[in-house]
Amino acid sequence: MLRQRMSKKVLIVGGVAGGASAAARARRLDENAQIIVFERGPYISFANCGLPYHIGGEIELRSALLLQTPESFKKRFNVDIRIKSEVLSIDKKAKTVTVHNIAADTEYTESYDALILSPGAGPLIPPIAGVRNHLTYALRNVPDMDAIIASIEINKPKHATVCGGGFIGLEMAEALRHRKIKVTIVELGPQVMASVDIEIANVLHDELEQHDVELKLGKALQGIAPSAPADKSLILTLNDGSVVETNLLIMAVGVKPETSLAVQAGLEIGELGGIKVNAFMQSSDPAIYAVGDAIEDPDFVTGDAIFVPLAGPANRQGRLAANNIFGAKETYKKTQGTAICKVFELAIASTGLNEKTLLRKAISYEKVYVHASSHAGYYPGAHPVTLKLLFDPATGLILGAQAVGKEGVDKRIDVISVAQRAGLTVYDLQDLELCYAPPFGSARDVVNQAGLVASNVMKGDEVIFHSEDLESLSDKQILVDVRSELEVDNTGMIHGAINIPVDDIRANLCKLDQNKEILIYCQVGVRGHVASRLLTNLGYKVKNLSGGFKTWKLATR
Amino acid sequence: MLRQRMSKKVLIVGGVAGGASAAARARRLDENAQIIVFERGPYISFANCGLPYHIGGEIELRSALLLQTPESFKKRFNVDIRIKSEVLSIDKKAKTVTVHNIAADTEYTESYDALILSPGAGPLIPPIAGVRNHLTYALRNVPDMDAIIASIEINKPKHATVCGGGFIGLEMAEALRHRKIKVTIVELGPQVMASVDIEIANVLHDELEQHDVELKLGKALQGIAPSAPADKSLILTLNDGSVVETNLLIMAVGVKPETSLAVQAGLEIGELGGIKVNAFMQSSDPAIYAVGDAIEDPDFVTGDAIFVPLAGPANRQGRLAANNIFGAKETYKKTQGTAICKVFELAIASTGLNEKTLLRKAISYEKVYVHASSHAGYYPGAHPVTLKLLFDPATGLILGAQAVGKEGVDKRIDVISVAQRAGLTVYDLQDLELCYAPPFGSARDVVNQAGLVASNVMKGDEVIFHSEDLESLSDKQILVDVRSELEVDNTGMIHGAINIPVDDIRANLCKLDQNKEILIYCQVGVRGHVASRLLTNLGYKVKNLSGGFKTWKLATR
Ligand SMILES: Cc1cc2nc3c(=O)[nH]c(=O)nc-3n(C[C@H](O)[C@H](O)[C@H](O)COP(=O)(O)OP(=O)(O)OC[C@H]3O[C@@H](n4cnc5c(N)ncnc54)[C@H](O)[C@@H]3O)c2cc1C
Ligand SMILES: Cc1cc2nc3c(=O)[nH]c(=O)nc-3n(C[C@H](O)[C@H](O)[C@H](O)COP(=O)(O)OP(=O)(O)OC[C@H]3O[C@@H](n4cnc5c(N)ncnc54)[C@H](O)[C@@H]3O)c2cc1C
Ligand SMILES: CC(C)(COP(=O)(O)OP(=O)(O)OC[C@H]1O[C@@H](n2cnc3c(N)ncnc32)[C@H](O)[C@@H]1OP(=O)(O)O)[C@@H](O)C(=O)NCCC(=O)NCCS
Ligand SMILES: CC(C)(COP(=O)(O)OP(=O)(O)OC[C@H]1O[C@@H](n2cnc3c(N)ncnc32)[C@H](O)[C@@H]1OP(=O)(O)O)[C@@H](O)C(=O)NCCC(=O)NCCS
Repeated sequence: MLRQRMSKKVLIVGGVAGGASAAARARRLDENAQIIVFERGPYISFANCGLPYHIGGEIELRSALLLQTPESFKKRFNVDIRIKSEVLSIDKKAKTVTVHNIAADTEYTESYDALILSPGAGPLIPPIAGVRNHLTYALRNVPDMDAIIASIEINKPKHATVCGGGFIGLEMAEALRHRKIKVTIVELGPQVMASVDIEIANVLHDELEQHDVELKLGKALQGIAPSAPADKSLILTLNDGSVVETNLLIMAVGVKPETSLAVQAGLEIGELGGIKVNAFMQSSDPAIYAVGDAIEDPDFVTGDAIFVPLAGPANRQGRLAANNIFGAKETYKKTQGTAICKVFELAIASTGLNEKTLLRKAISYEKVYVHASSHAGYYPGAHPVTLKLLFDPATGLILGAQAVGKEGVDKRIDVISVAQRAGLTVYDLQDLELCYAPPFGSARDVVNQAGLVASNVMKGDEVIFHSEDLESLSDKQILVDVRSELEVDNTGMIHGAINIPVDDIRANLCKLDQNKEILIYCQVGVRGHVASRLLTNLGYKVKNLSGGFKTWKLATR
Repeated sequence: MLRQRMSKKVLIVGGVAGGASAAARARRLDENAQIIVFERGPYISFANCGLPYHIGGEIELRSALLLQTPESFKKRFNVDIRIKSEVLSIDKKAKTVTVHNIAADTEYTESYDALILSPGAGPLIPPIAGVRNHLTYALRNVPDMDAIIASIEINKPKHATVCGGGFIGLEMAEALRHRKIKVTIVELGPQVMASVDIEIANVLHDELEQHDVELKLGKALQGIAPSAPADKSLILTLNDGSVVETNLLIMAVGVKPETSLAVQAGLEIGELGGIKVNAFMQSSDPAIYAVGDAIEDPDFVTGDAIFVPLAGPANRQGRLAANNIFGAKETYKKTQGTAICKVFELAIASTGLNEKTLLRKAISYEKVYVHASSHAGYYPGAHPVTLKLLFDPATGLILGAQAVGKEGVDKRIDVISVAQRAGLTVYDLQDLELCYAPPFGSARDVVNQAGLVASNVMKGDEVIFHSEDLESLSDKQILVDVRSELEVDNTGMIHGAINIPVDDIRANLCKLDQNKEILIYCQVGVRGHVASRLLTNLGYKVKNLSGGFKTWKLATR
């Protein structure tokens, strides 16, 4: 039971996801508290996440993005919202902040009992020669969006370049394609969407190319120069010497925590450059809380500091900071980083750790792939969901998951995210009772199948191998493609394989040398599993390619 | 690690969900076992769940429903599939079954080491006068479906009646509407879809009526008589004396476990009329396993026997029985009864216990309602999800949940189903990290919101009341509608309420007598929550109507 306490004066820096959530919650906790929100920009409570969709035109009304105004917020929550007000500095000792009233160009100080920092993260603009020009934009807030739309409407770009293939870059690429502008994505890494592993991202690469987005992966933007027609064109130079002529450049290479205030105030900054907080959301000064994109989160699996600039954590942390300021002692429950992005017809989502991170942190893991139908295959509109599940081979605990597909991707990652958070193992995934009717799922859902496969691996009932293991095929091994002849004719086989369709294996045992290791694959893994169980039970030493030819294709794209 | 064991002879009765799953798994466990499946009908491994959709035309190809044939199953799994073979009796002592080869009209016995019964459940046909006629059908298998389609194509019915509003009845009503046939549903209970509570079912009632399905709730079919035009019409008499003239009658009042074999063999039958099994899926005779629709399941919450005729449990239990026959000692993990049904534009789903059951079992519970957007409201295509969450007010453990809406219903019930299974509480639901980008969800998902509301109730931060409490409004209470004047003008208010829009409360405190209990409501509960926190913090005694006017409307429809 929360009781009325002595009224506090709470200042909040930043009036969007974390800040507005904290302000609204603070008022619900204390009707008498004095609550002031300072927002540098002209808007509060806007839908950052909706910005690309208004540029693309899917969200028609600009006003739809403004969820609250200072007036509506004042009326509802009696919170003093000061827009165009930048907090310049904090005096920890005096417990005051200095504020720049941008409109009036005046400065004043304001005292606090508790201060919440939710200043967010700003776009990372690498120091590339020529990057400051009137055709180059980043997208963080409503004025940025307005500027991009104005540029499009005035300059009518034929071609745009998006530098960076993270989720904002991908959403911008799609938005620009909706505007019928040709798009090139320049990405330094070997893949877009760094939160997933490359074989999963490869599904996106295909999708992007199918939607006429040119991909320049593994390339760095090195120079930007204006070009004729004067003022409407840029020449971009990449690190491979190639040039791209473009009419609009979106910089989306990442965001960095806004820590200037925290640094000035001498608050502790973490290794990743975000504000360091404890589980109560307190910075190194206990009267100053920090939340959202500006802070480092504890990773759910490792507890290590991670930087997860997402709206869900920001909203939760904002509420939590308010709770703790008003007497609760609640702790933040760590971040899995569950995220999703729409890329044309596809959704791509992930939770927990990816394989790259597991390798980097030298955490032992196993992985399985399934490609199963989003709903019953015989009901119209079913599409494959490609799911990669990472787990601890000693305990079966879920380490992470990634999925991509046209339908039901969000659902599967949500389900696994809950399972991971609850500490379930891959064994438990087998038995999850998920909604089934033909339009929605299968009697054995994608997640159940992943659970079955991983459990079989855990128990040693199925020994799997992966595409990367195939690089070193020895003469003590036989690689067997157990798909139908028709499929093999259509797609070809993996180099070195022989074809024995699964249903013909019993009649063709003579072709399989008992002294060799039999490496089996089919299209997605199911028939490979049937074949490998058959041969295992007959005493062969067998391995099945997890995710089959389909995963191999993705992994070797 | 599963090792090769002495070959066993396994007989399986029933070749569909439970039976086929058991057979396939058995073969994957033992290549040398002798496995025989007896199926009375002409098909195995067919998609029961798809039958209504082929009648309705959404699934065009009849062959799409036949997932395996005896030949394909034999080729893949080397299982001896005997269709048109009815098992007539079991000799437990001799470990044999007697089989009727229907085609040849011969009988023979077959011995077993282990026997799996997966005979399913048959349609319940109440003993109504005249029920056996050529215009009355039930839907269980492919021949039933063929017969219904033939009747439609030959008789060209103008009107059809579906007796029973469970999921098969609802799917059939929709299928018949797709065929442009007028439909009446006659349902004995006060609602369709008995697995949810009535206020949730009321959303379906509206949807059905909007799709020109006539609903006769609380009515029993009492008599059936042929009518002119001879052979093409029936006169149905209901228990209120009314009559319905119809050209096709679908009996879908429920299913009953097929226990004739089990009864004959003297296996223990449970109170609900299903075969009794232990957690290993063994019947009272340890060599005889039983799975699927024919058995009683242990309820996840209470452990009591329940009857849950669904494909997921049948498939899992079939696999489990096979595992245990081949040496595992795995236990069935109880049944939540997670289920979903598409009803025209809507999906309705549930997991765990409903309120009716909690009341009947005198289990203490609290409930909250949220009506939140399936994805960000500002992104096109968002629809409200109506979610009812039932939980233990002492522990916060999840008891059950129900949801209805146009989008994302399956996802929310899946998420809660996993959370319930994992033993999470409503507090944990607040912090679930679910996929968020505008096309897929919200920074605070529907499930997070439900978790927030329920946690507030648990902590006493919000005292809620329900529609049923309103029946007894006393003069010590003030009922306050905190919606806008416009909303009140459009929908009216609950009888006895005064209107003070949430944003005007601070200016109108004089209208609220501190000595009275303030009962607050808004449209869905959010503004009511803001108002009730405000007044609570000022020392008022306040309650908020959970789910607001929207839930009240549904509950009092
Ligand atoms: C284009 C785009 C798309 C996105 N899509 C998604 C998505 O689909 N899903 C998702 O989960 N997340 C998405 N995000 C991320 C999400 O918006 C952020 O994680 C979230 O807004 C972070 O909240 P915050 O409160 O930490 O920061 P912000 O919401 O950025 O708010 C910080 C505010 O503080 C103000 N401020 C900073 N310094 C000062 C100062 N000194 N004085 C006064 N004011 C100051 C800033 O002007 C800013 O308005 C997206 C972000 C962008 C930009
Ligand atoms: C129209 C319809 C729609 C459905 N929709 C859904 C849905 O959307 N979601 C869902 O989860 N569930 C749905 N179900 C239920 C689901 O199909 C069943 O729960 C599941 O099939 C049960 O599996 P089972 O193996 O126990 O029985 P069944 O699949 O019914 O198989 C039993 C088989 O045993 C045979 N048999 C019986 N006795 C004998 C005997 N003595 N000798 C030989 N053979 C015998 C029968 O002929 C039958 O083919 C639906 C069912 C129907 C009929
Ligand atoms: C708009 C905004 C101010 C809303 O803040 P908020 O009022 O805390 O949040 P919501 O509107 O989601 O309401 C949640 C509150 O209503 C309560 N609630 C929700 N549904 C309810 C129901 N049916 N009955 C009762 N209470 C309910 C919750 O318990 C919670 O209250 P609590 O914190 O006191 O427990 C804030 O989210 C914001 O500024 N968002 C825009 C910026 C942003 O998030 N950008 C990134 C994403 S695009
Ligand atoms: C068709 C039918 C025989 C399939 O049975 P099945 O082979 O056991 O089931 P699936 O095809 O789902 O395959 C599951 C198996 O493949 C494995 N598998 C799935 N995906 C895999 C992958 N990517 N890699 C390796 N193995 C995989 C699973 O582990 C499981 O094997 P296991 O039981 O040995 O662990 C049976 O489900 C059936 O008859 N269904 C129709 C009837 C029915 O269910 N009706 C009601 C619903 S409409």
